Amino acid sequence: MLSEFDLIQRYFNRPVTGIPLGIGDDAAIIAPKPGKELAISTDCLVAGQHFFENTNPYKLGYKALAVNLSDMAAMGAVPRWVTLALALPRSLIDHHESWLDEFSRGFHELAALHQVSLIGGDTTAGPLNICVQIIGEVNQGRWLRRSGAKPGDDIWVSGCLGDAALGLKHQLRELVLTDEEAAHCLLALDMPSARVALGQRLIELAHSAIDISDGLVADLGHILSCSGQSATVELETVPGSEIMKRYLPSTLAIECLTAGGDDYELCFTAPKENQSAIRQLGQELKVPLTIIGEIKSQKSQKPELIIYGIKGEKIVLEKKGYDHFTS
Amino acid sequence: MLSEFDLIQRYFNRPVTGIPLGIGDDAAIIAPKPGKELAISTDCLVAGQHFFENTNPYKLGYKALAVNLSDMAAMGAVPRWVTLALALPRSLIDHHESWLDEFSRGFHELAALHQVSLIGGDTTAGPLNICVQIIGEVNQGRWLRRSGAKPGDDIWVSGCLGDAALGLKHQLRELVLTDEEAAHCLLALDMPSARVALGQRLIELAHSAIDISDGLVADLGHILSCSGQSATVELETVPGSEIMKRYLPSTLAIECLTAGGDDYELCFTAPKENQSAIRQLGQELKVPLTIIGEIKSQKSQKPELIIYGIKGEKIVLEKKGYDHFTS
Repeated sequence: MLSEFDLIQRYFNRPVTGIPLGIGDDAAIIAPKPGKELAISTDCLVAGQHFFENTNPYKLGYKALAVNLSDMAAMGAVPRWVTLALALPRSLIDHHESWLDEFSRGFHELAALHQVSLIGGDTTAGPLNICVQIIGEVNQGRWLRRSGAKPGDDIWVSGCLGDAALGLKHQLRELVLTDEEAAHCLLALDMPSARVALGQRLIELAHSAIDISDGLVADLGHILSCSGQSATVELETVPGSEIMKRYLPSTLAIECLTAGGDDYELCFTAPKENQSAIRQLGQELKVPLTIIGEIKSQKSQKPELIIYGIKGEKIVLEKKGYDHFTS
Repeated sequence: MLSEFDLIQRYFNRPVTGIPLGIGDDAAIIAPKPGKELAISTDCLVAGQHFFENTNPYKLGYKALAVNLSDMAAMGAVPRWVTLALALPRSLIDHHESWLDEFSRGFHELAALHQVSLIGGDTTAGPLNICVQIIGEVNQGRWLRRSGAKPGDDIWVSGCLGDAALGLKHQLRELVLTDEEAAHCLLALDMPSARVALGQRLIELAHSAIDISDGLVADLGHILSCSGQSATVELETVPGSEIMKRYLPSTLAIECLTAGGDDYELCFTAPKENQSAIRQLGQELKVPLTIIGEIKSQKSQKPELIIYGIKGEKIVLEKKGYDHFTS
């Protein structure tokens, strides 16, 4: 049987350069550059809660890192270092080869793509729980925040929303997609793109930003409450894929589009004078960027988010987004 | 029912000073001081693996932080910031008041004692899993490592070893302690002291250090393999409490003393000329510090750890320490 030490050596200890001390002591040591501040975030994936126990381990390794990269994207930070805390069921420890080979391959591949180094962590037996902590660099005082939205700002989102939620509903058999549709939507669910490059470039252009992990309405809601503002959104403009469009305007599709979790696109607000610079940035990075609404002054006690349908009618949503506890 | 946001606000979001951005965005932002390097470590406690499901939540909150502080102690780092990733079973989310009140109280109390700030984390539903990541500061290039032991170094340990293991054996009914003995040993198990101040002072005095979390033999073994050295230890000198002495020299007690996990004392090696300075430091900090053996040149292919009994006989241990996978 593999010891904890052997497992770390075999699957996770990879050469790391540019830090004083990596895996193998009581802590890793990093040396932040002068003038840099560090963005710190942590996001866990728990079996049965965030994924099905039988999820492809390659995709799971990929996604565990991707969701954390997405937090760095939302801060405009350059992701640099990660630690991985892994609780593994006995069955996976006993028959580790294929699962850990694939899990670590997915993790390391995405890490290499973003030049992120795995510098430490913890492994233990227990119900499958994958916890990644990520550390990124920002220039002093220069990061994207949730709290900077101003009245008159355009509200933008990157990419297309809701495909991951369609994929999940297909898995849960609440919806039947064709094989080709399912392949696309499950890829969006399992291997999301973190908009890391976009986030970094938005520091100069956006007033506020968040990544859409719990659904557009919930996450835009966080921008509003942190900024003390209200907003209007035109449902018609919220970008959906060609597949999404086939299912709109069904209630279920609208729910996926506006309140589906796991999109990992960025939602950000920016002054109108930056419209052309942002469009140009989207072309340069080959990321679709779409204006979906506008920030308004908060008139009542609470921020208000009004969604208008195609005929100008106000839309009341049944589901506001994903809450890890009440869902 | 409490939402994830409300839960964080109520139990974990406490005022933090001295950092640019705390809880409530996609990441926290910290500003390392010039000339400082950061020590990063993560340690998780999993129900059924590290603690019994019915463990007192106050003590659990305390211990989850203490084991991470101990890693900072072993590096000689000043602990500064922590994140907490918490997976909570539905039963605890539904009946959260007493459990989370107590858990967060234990966590925050120890954090306040060490002036450590909780700056972020993640909460999710799932089997109980408590993952803390800690970040500490060290001066550039000045930290304790496992790899610096040199032939002729004294091997030291702080405090007394094995009481936590006695407490665990009592809980597992492998041993019956008196009520008074059990109270002492369970306190050692549930609320370990992290030797944070000691670790920082040892930077000037020690060649190598580790915290004893998996048992003396296993953790001293890590120093030896990282340093490429061998060692001898005199069993008679390994410090045990008055309670431990009552059970010595039974095999079970020797096992607790030398291979019991959860001690969170420091094991370190230092040149002989530092003996009096180290004794003085122990007096100043009111921490017992004891020499238990000596580092020897490694003669064979692998580091060798020889333990001598009272009559000079070599002792062969059945159990080398705690492995999270093979135990």
